[in-house]
Amino acid sequence: MASKTYEYNVEMTCEGCSGAVDRILKRASDKVSDFEIDLPGKKVFVTTTVSSDEVLEMLKKSGKATKFVGEKSS
Amino acid sequence: MASKTYEYNVEMTCEGCSGAVDRILKRASDKVSDFEIDLPGKKVFVTTTVSSDEVLEMLKKSGKATKFVGEKSS
Repeated sequence: MASKTYEYNVEMTCEGCSGAVDRILKRASDKVSDFEIDLPGKKVFVTTTVSSDEVLEMLKKSGKATKFVGEKSS
Repeated sequence: MASKTYEYNVEMTCEGCSGAVDRILKRASDKVSDFEIDLPGKKVFVTTTVSSDEVLEMLKKSGKATKFVGEKSS
């Protein structure tokens, strides 16, 4: 299955916040092939073969307000 | 089943961090009857009927470094 990259808004305000998101995505390395976290922009880009909804659920487990923005064209 | 209160160290560094923990515990209101978050002390107290391990797993989903400290005598 082809990978897609999805963009999310995640409410992150410090390096503890972005570190938590980093840890969640690293733990999901069987599903997430690559990711990028933009702390000042409160954005997270996730490259994955699973659905954008499944990634959203993963990110929401952090307890942070999270919103799916859209698919990134590669 | 009787409730117990467990203490955890959770690596929280800003109000975004403590807000995330707050949201996770509120979501688990079927299992968590009460909780208290001490952001400067990086401590979380959880009153629950489930096991301390189950609460630890909940808190770990935040992506934050979390450690079980012990049971609080009431």
